[in-house]
Amino acid sequence: MNLHVRIVTPHTTARPSKLAGLEDLTGAFPGLRLSHVGLDAGPVSVEGSFDEALCAPGVVQRCIEAAREGVDQIVIDCMGDPGLEAARESVSTCVLGSCETTLHVAAMLGHKFSVLTVLERVRNLLERRALVYGLRDKLASVHAVDVPVLEIGVDEVALTRALFERAKVAIEQDHADTIVLGCTGFLGLSQRLSSALREAGYAVPVLDPLRTALATAVSLGSLGLTHSPQAFPSASFGKPIRGFASLAQLLSQGAQRT
Amino acid sequence: MNLHVRIVTPHTTARPSKLAGLEDLTGAFPGLRLSHVGLDAGPVSVEGSFDEALCAPGVVQRCIEAAREGVDQIVIDCMGDPGLEAARESVSTCVLGSCETTLHVAAMLGHKFSVLTVLERVRNLLERRALVYGLRDKLASVHAVDVPVLEIGVDEVALTRALFERAKVAIEQDHADTIVLGCTGFLGLSQRLSSALREAGYAVPVLDPLRTALATAVSLGSLGLTHSPQAFPSASFGKPIRGFASLAQLLSQGAQRT
Amino acid sequence: MNLHVRIVTPHTTARPSKLAGLEDLTGAFPGLRLSHVGLDAGPVSVEGSFDEALCAPGVVQRCIEAAREGVDQIVIDCMGDPGLEAARESVSTCVLGSCETTLHVAAMLGHKFSVLTVLERVRNLLERRALVYGLRDKLASVHAVDVPVLEIGVDEVALTRALFERAKVAIEQDHADTIVLGCTGFLGLSQRLSSALREAGYAVPVLDPLRTALATAVSLGSLGLTHSPQAFPSASFGKPIRGFASLAQLLSQGAQRT
Amino acid sequence: MNLHVRIVTPHTTARPSKLAGLEDLTGAFPGLRLSHVGLDAGPVSVEGSFDEALCAPGVVQRCIEAAREGVDQIVIDCMGDPGLEAARESVSTCVLGSCETTLHVAAMLGHKFSVLTVLERVRNLLERRALVYGLRDKLASVHAVDVPVLEIGVDEVALTRALFERAKVAIEQDHADTIVLGCTGFLGLSQRLSSALREAGYAVPVLDPLRTALATAVSLGSLGLTHSPQAFPSASFGKPIRGFASLAQLLSQGAQRT
Amino acid sequence: MNLHVRIVTPHTTARPSKLAGLEDLTGAFPGLRLSHVGLDAGPVSVEGSFDEALCAPGVVQRCIEAAREGVDQIVIDCMGDPGLEAARESVSTCVLGSCETTLHVAAMLGHKFSVLTVLERVRNLLERRALVYGLRDKLASVHAVDVPVLEIGVDEVALTRALFERAKVAIEQDHADTIVLGCTGFLGLSQRLSSALREAGYAVPVLDPLRTALATAVSLGSLGLTHSPQAFPSASFGKPIRGFASLAQLLSQGAQRT
Amino acid sequence: MNLHVRIVTPHTTARPSKLAGLEDLTGAFPGLRLSHVGLDAGPVSVEGSFDEALCAPGVVQRCIEAAREGVDQIVIDCMGDPGLEAARESVSTCVLGSCETTLHVAAMLGHKFSVLTVLERVRNLLERRALVYGLRDKLASVHAVDVPVLEIGVDEVALTRALFERAKVAIEQDHADTIVLGCTGFLGLSQRLSSALREAGYAVPVLDPLRTALATAVSLGSLGLTHSPQAFPSASFGKPIRGFASLAQLLSQGAQRT
Repeated sequence: MNLHVRIVTPHTTARPSKLAGLEDLTGAFPGLRLSHVGLDAGPVSVEGSFDEALCAPGVVQRCIEAAREGVDQIVIDCMGDPGLEAARESVSTCVLGSCETTLHVAAMLGHKFSVLTVLERVRNLLERRALVYGLRDKLASVHAVDVPVLEIGVDEVALTRALFERAKVAIEQDHADTIVLGCTGFLGLSQRLSSALREAGYAVPVLDPLRTALATAVSLGSLGLTHSPQAFPSASFGKPIRGFASLAQLLSQGAQRT
Repeated sequence: MNLHVRIVTPHTTARPSKLAGLEDLTGAFPGLRLSHVGLDAGPVSVEGSFDEALCAPGVVQRCIEAAREGVDQIVIDCMGDPGLEAARESVSTCVLGSCETTLHVAAMLGHKFSVLTVLERVRNLLERRALVYGLRDKLASVHAVDVPVLEIGVDEVALTRALFERAKVAIEQDHADTIVLGCTGFLGLSQRLSSALREAGYAVPVLDPLRTALATAVSLGSLGLTHSPQAFPSASFGKPIRGFASLAQLLSQGAQRT
Repeated sequence: MNLHVRIVTPHTTARPSKLAGLEDLTGAFPGLRLSHVGLDAGPVSVEGSFDEALCAPGVVQRCIEAAREGVDQIVIDCMGDPGLEAARESVSTCVLGSCETTLHVAAMLGHKFSVLTVLERVRNLLERRALVYGLRDKLASVHAVDVPVLEIGVDEVALTRALFERAKVAIEQDHADTIVLGCTGFLGLSQRLSSALREAGYAVPVLDPLRTALATAVSLGSLGLTHSPQAFPSASFGKPIRGFASLAQLLSQGAQRT
Repeated sequence: MNLHVRIVTPHTTARPSKLAGLEDLTGAFPGLRLSHVGLDAGPVSVEGSFDEALCAPGVVQRCIEAAREGVDQIVIDCMGDPGLEAARESVSTCVLGSCETTLHVAAMLGHKFSVLTVLERVRNLLERRALVYGLRDKLASVHAVDVPVLEIGVDEVALTRALFERAKVAIEQDHADTIVLGCTGFLGLSQRLSSALREAGYAVPVLDPLRTALATAVSLGSLGLTHSPQAFPSASFGKPIRGFASLAQLLSQGAQRT
Repeated sequence: MNLHVRIVTPHTTARPSKLAGLEDLTGAFPGLRLSHVGLDAGPVSVEGSFDEALCAPGVVQRCIEAAREGVDQIVIDCMGDPGLEAARESVSTCVLGSCETTLHVAAMLGHKFSVLTVLERVRNLLERRALVYGLRDKLASVHAVDVPVLEIGVDEVALTRALFERAKVAIEQDHADTIVLGCTGFLGLSQRLSSALREAGYAVPVLDPLRTALATAVSLGSLGLTHSPQAFPSASFGKPIRGFASLAQLLSQGAQRT
Repeated sequence: MNLHVRIVTPHTTARPSKLAGLEDLTGAFPGLRLSHVGLDAGPVSVEGSFDEALCAPGVVQRCIEAAREGVDQIVIDCMGDPGLEAARESVSTCVLGSCETTLHVAAMLGHKFSVLTVLERVRNLLERRALVYGLRDKLASVHAVDVPVLEIGVDEVALTRALFERAKVAIEQDHADTIVLGCTGFLGLSQRLSSALREAGYAVPVLDPLRTALATAVSLGSLGLTHSPQAFPSASFGKPIRGFASLAQLLSQGAQRT
């Protein structure tokens, strides 16, 4: 099965290493082709609702472009799933959010999961997402390591230690049995955290959200499944749009949704 | 008490009659000044998540402008509350959503309310909002009259009749005891619907969302209350933004959140 | 708008200072007239279900009297909302409970609120109210300061300090972002608590329940809204009542509900 | 085991036949003694929150009297459980509500139960009780036969037929598998309804609330269990009470709660 | 009323003292006859889902045998209720689970209960049971004393102390007001724990699950109630079964369900 | 990536065609090897809790055998997920249930799904599974086509028509936007049903549970994830087991869980 999955990173910071960190997945699925794009307009990182509002139009545009290019699946590379519903209304190509997908996969593996994220300020955002996805009762807790997205790479040893400490609290106090990394910027840390926890006697899966969403995209691709058009009715592209020039031009070239 | 409430209509269609329909409120509160603005960029009407994604940046911009002008309260004039959380992260001035406010007021008046809205396609959007606002169990049902926003004024008699029919189903089958008009474009119809229902023997309050949000804004203004800064932590405006020129310029002039 | 709001204090202790503490509200709304009454029969304070059972008949009587007098809105001055449903069945005049109203307003302002109340023994009562009002998932926690209602005025400095300590726990441990004072006897303390929290770096709204209910009564008055007759069907006053002489006499003078 | 259970009927209508209809229970438990009392003050029947407010003080008084007399268990003979929490705060003797007890027993026997009651107007009251008792998700539906309490005995054949029709809807449309009679005035009808359903091919238990509460009282008596004092802290009888002369006099004779 | 209740202990360890510890119940109900059986095949104790899978077929067999013998009620003697649903599909005789029955009785007595059990490893199992029984919101917490089932009798003084410590945490931190012993092997400890708590000032009922289920069986027997055949449709015994020789032979002798 | 997934069909009926119907999956993943086994002991089909109780021990045995053989992933081929938790306690190899996996994947694709199953009698079983998996609020409804498992192949045209009719009701009345086939015996029907719905204008994904579970097993395999050992603590195989000879012998050969 040949499958082209597009990763849409919903901010304007260049991240050259993203595909490099996913070689195990492309190794596992020989027919899998990954490509990824960032945004032209929007914030440099997504750490709240303001940032999400500014990146959602760009996410929609990138999804329409991907659909035009004939991409098979699209993954939004952020735990807040910014623009997810709007993008799903805009294209027939299957769009997955890293958060929605990963929380449901985590829910399959145990009774309760905890999410370990960057900043305390995104707690509410993540809790709202869990609520909307129907998973409130599977969410044991949200914990933050107090490291902004743009500083994730500064000291990975300290960061892993901080994640380990929060995971311990989640397991022992909140009765979590599964750990979800709550930021797609944590790519590459799940193995380290998993090892540290195993060494300390904690036998819990650790889910990396981008990797989980990509593997799920492959799985859905093999099943021929996409998000439900009934659940996300096609946006009425006939209505005029002011501003958003490049997006409007894209839309003028014809419908993406059937 | 002098209070200036700004109505932010999150689309680009001019609606000259909005303030005209609210004279009863300004009559009731002599110190109340209403002003309203639309958007420069975005859709002509808001009927789904795609539309919401395109209007949210403009809503944020209008709220920052209102805060600069010293407005006391801001009301977002749409039942999807687009941009609500982002705007709350952006200004200290109290921002209210028509949906959130009206659903909670409806919840105070009875046991279960139903929402009567424009199109079947916004059902999920409204149900998600009720869920996020903690009111899932107070929502009896959502019904649509199958009239797009831009055609609301075409035949108000037929529209009122359609609303009446949906209200009857909501009351008799879904056990709703309170009716919420599910589109701020229905302004002016609540009285008619209320009369029609009363004549038919149904004694239920009918809430107009824009009017309810404005009266609540007055009430909160008198109490000196605003949305919780703890719940909506200030956006980090120090981070660079690409695109969104006029919004970025506004932000470069200094923080709006304390 | 001229509006007469009657405050019904559901106990038999005289509290001369109540209206004095509400001058800011009457100042804010020049057409607002406040009046308040206590009960002839019942407990000296309301701190549990036994007290509520003894004050509910008196609350109903006071509401019928208020409706007879042509009062526009009625507010029950107690966080347990004793007699609320019974009163709503008895009069067409809008009756609001301090608890129901304030919890919904708190829910509009943030994600989760905590209630700070007098005695541990009313925890269950308040939790049940939140549950019945559909707000269980918005309630972060209930904390008590261990001060009986009748001793609230004894040492306001110590009381404010105790409220501050409980608020800190609510914010830091229970993730509350909005604080509700859980007794209408705390009137006058919200400003103090709010200042103390702000000085300590906690940016959370603090809601005084009586004040919030009164401002909401004004708001509902301007909208012409009342509690739903469908939700609270008129009591069948034709049925004979034994005992409750003054209430029975009132009822014999004709129906208050339409 | 000798056990004296007091039935407190929370209204002022004399019902001479009550004990007569319970002879099967006293036959089943030779040591069981039943006694029952009505109220001196209150409504003639309980069909709403107004009625409940007027009967609750009398229920409390009857429970204190029963405790004085050394009764072992008390059952409140009404599906609204009026005064239940207040009575539990007032006496150490175990007080059971017909509604709370019967809904939990129904929940033990199947997946979902429906409640068939007298009038549509008590639907909200019963739904609130199910919610407060933690059983919202076990309640399939509430249906009313539109017969006031005082007319239950007028035409038992028609009433049974009406209950049968509602039960059919509950089973076939609402997926109820257990039927709860939603009024203690239906005493004697459970057998008839059960037979009619069985003949029609519906194999569902039919619970009579008074009978179920009494049998549960026997069961709890044999276990030495009572309602939790921690959950229902003792009312502070030291506080003065105005009015309610006979109740106040009772209280002046000493505490009933340990 | 003569009633024969069969206790089915779902493991293969002989426990001669079981009936000896229940003499108070047979004393309370002169017509009550208790009998009990263990299993021929299965684990020596039930401490997880693996154990439950191995004992469920034996539980079903014992229930069919009991029905053949004309037993009136059956109680499964384990807090995981292994085989409960399967047994109910297999016989018309009323089958009760110790867990389901006791949690509902606990729910009648207070606002929230905690379950004190043997090993941390059964936490999820008990939480799932509470969820399935509709009681998630009444369950304050689960605590374990870290004593395997087969070591319960080793040091009852230490065990009671451990239960007391967990009960204290449940009451003070989790706001439990009712305590459920979370293993039927704790038979005989409820009185001790109850006394210890009372002496320490904690006024909470302590429920022994086997005793509670048996007393409820008596109560249901007097009411003529059984589990709902509609909820647990008869297993289709016509289908061939491979293996399970003695069970298959039993089934070949004719249907037990009507 | 080479991956061996074992399908465990939890009954004793031979089904030679199973792998034949999955060639698209093995075609999509060249490294994927599927194998499948049935049971030696148990029922001929699984249509209720009795059947589940009889097949669970066999499922556990087959999972231990698969782990011994070095299989990479195990999928239980039944919508009731019989033996899932017990199997997870028994092996380190990842065990997936067709129901749990498919419901979570369905939840990723839309707002609400309905399950279309064989017989009305499994409704409760499926609803309980959805509840336990945390997905109660995503489940719009369960509908049955009234065809026993062993008759699925008798008339596939009539069966597809029946599924289509139930799907229409689910979409139009229950607001489902995603359809889950509620029996793994429906293998091969999802495409037909999907086509029929699309032709009739219903744009909803249709999920085949076995296929969905297998594709998810591949996805989890590529991620190196397994069910959480913390959530499903290892069964204590040291305890003696009576009966279940072949299973006991397997266990005597050493632990499968680390």
